[in-house]
Amino acid sequence: MDYPNDQAPGAPVRSGIPEHGRVPKYYAVKARIAALVDALGEGAAIPTERDLSERYEVARETVRQAVRELVLEGKLRRQGRGTVVAGPKLAQPLSLASYTEGVRRQGRTPGRTLVGLDRFPCPEALAAETGLTRGEPVWHLERVLLADDERVGLESTYVSVARVPRLDRDFDPDSSFYGYLDRQGIAFGDADERIETVLATPREALLIGTPPALPMLLIHRVSRDTGGRPLERVRTLYRGDRFSFTAHLGG
Amino acid sequence: MDYPNDQAPGAPVRSGIPEHGRVPKYYAVKARIAALVDALGEGAAIPTERDLSERYEVARETVRQAVRELVLEGKLRRQGRGTVVAGPKLAQPLSLASYTEGVRRQGRTPGRTLVGLDRFPCPEALAAETGLTRGEPVWHLERVLLADDERVGLESTYVSVARVPRLDRDFDPDSSFYGYLDRQGIAFGDADERIETVLATPREALLIGTPPALPMLLIHRVSRDTGGRPLERVRTLYRGDRFSFTAHLGG
Repeated sequence: MDYPNDQAPGAPVRSGIPEHGRVPKYYAVKARIAALVDALGEGAAIPTERDLSERYEVARETVRQAVRELVLEGKLRRQGRGTVVAGPKLAQPLSLASYTEGVRRQGRTPGRTLVGLDRFPCPEALAAETGLTRGEPVWHLERVLLADDERVGLESTYVSVARVPRLDRDFDPDSSFYGYLDRQGIAFGDADERIETVLATPREALLIGTPPALPMLLIHRVSRDTGGRPLERVRTLYRGDRFSFTAHLGG
Repeated sequence: MDYPNDQAPGAPVRSGIPEHGRVPKYYAVKARIAALVDALGEGAAIPTERDLSERYEVARETVRQAVRELVLEGKLRRQGRGTVVAGPKLAQPLSLASYTEGVRRQGRTPGRTLVGLDRFPCPEALAAETGLTRGEPVWHLERVLLADDERVGLESTYVSVARVPRLDRDFDPDSSFYGYLDRQGIAFGDADERIETVLATPREALLIGTPPALPMLLIHRVSRDTGGRPLERVRTLYRGDRFSFTAHLGG
C-alpha cells in the first residue's frame, strides 16, 4: 500500500499519479487544485490563474491546462470572468421514465427549447433500426434540454407521422414528449439503449453552449409500445461534465 | 429539411456542421476524413498526414487535429507508424454478468493482468458506500482488462477479506473474479451502477496504454449477495474509444 488508506473508492488510485516515470507538471498542479476544490465546496470561486501560477510556481499556461481539464470533467465551471467549484453531476436513472421525471426527482426544473421539427420519408438506416417502413413519413423533433435554465443536452426524436399526426399542431415543444404520448393513449412497452462517449461537434457545442470537443454522453434509444410496435428512435447527447447515469441490476 | 434524408439517426444532425457561423477548418477536414473512413472499412490504412494536407489543401497541423479527434472517438486507431480504420466499439451489456461473459459474447477473448493486490483496513468512504465495517480488513484487487490482448480498461475491486480470506493464495488474477466467487458458493443478488465520462489520469493512461486525457467511461458498482449482504465495490474504467454499454429497459 503506497497510497492513502482514506482514498475514496470512486477516485483514481494514487490520485492518478504513476508509480514510476515522470508526472506531467500540469497534472501535479491539477491534483493540487482538485484538493483545493474539495476543500472550498460548491459555488466558491477559485483563485485567479495568476495567483495559482504564483502559488505553485509554474507558468500560467500550466495552470490553464489543469483548470481546462477540471472544467471538462465538471469539477469546475466558468462563471462570468471567474471559475467556481461546480456542483455534483446529475445522476439520471436509465429507465423508461422521461428526462422530465429524472430531472424533477433531483430537485431541478426541466425545460426544453425547440431547434426544429421536420417531416421527411423514413430513410433506410432508420427503418432498419426501428422496424418502421422505408419511405413512410416520419417526424424529426430536435430540442435543447435544460435543467434550471442551463443548457445540458440535445435530443433528436424520430417518430412515425402516422403515430402522432398532429405533432406539429398540438404539441408544445417545451413540454414532455412522453407526457404528450401518454395523453394520446400511447404507452411505452420496452426500449433498447446504448450509451457511449463522444466529442461534441461544433454544431452541438454551439447549440448547447459548451466548449468545443467537450466529452459528452450519448444515449441511443429504440423503443416500442406495449404491443411491441415501433415507437421512437432517440439520440440524446448529455454534457459529460453535468450528467451521470444510474442503473439498478437484478434483485 | 436542410440535411440529407439518408442521414443515420445515430449520427449528429447535419454531420455536426452549424446552420450559421464559421465551421472550424479542422472540423471540415474531420468530416471529410470521416466519410473516407466509412468508405474504406475496418483495418484499412488512411493516407499519410502529408497526403491528406495536400489533398484538402490545409496545413498538416489541421489534418493532425482532425485525425487526433477521430482517434479519441475510436473511428481511427494508430498502428505502428500509420493510422488505420478502427472496428466498431464493443457493446457490453449493463448486467450482473461479468466482463468475461460480456466480451466472450462478442467473440473476443477476455484477459486481465494484475497490477496489485493489497490488504488494508476499510476506510470511511468505502464503509459508507458498501455497508462494510470501518476498519475491517479489505482486499483491493487492481487489474488491467484485455480484449484479444489489447489493453482496454482498468478495474479496482474492493471486497471484504472475511468474505474471500484466501484471495491472495488461491485466486488466479488472470481469471474471472466472478467465476471465483461462484466457486466459493457466493451468488450475486443485485447491484447499483453509475456510469460517467472522465479523462484518463497519467497513471491510468500509462497502465492502459492510451493517449493522455482520452475520454473514458467509468462504471461504479456496489453489489450485494442474494442475502442482501455487501459483496464488492468496483471501479471500472473502460476506453471510451473502444466501449459502449447497452441496457434493455422494461418489457
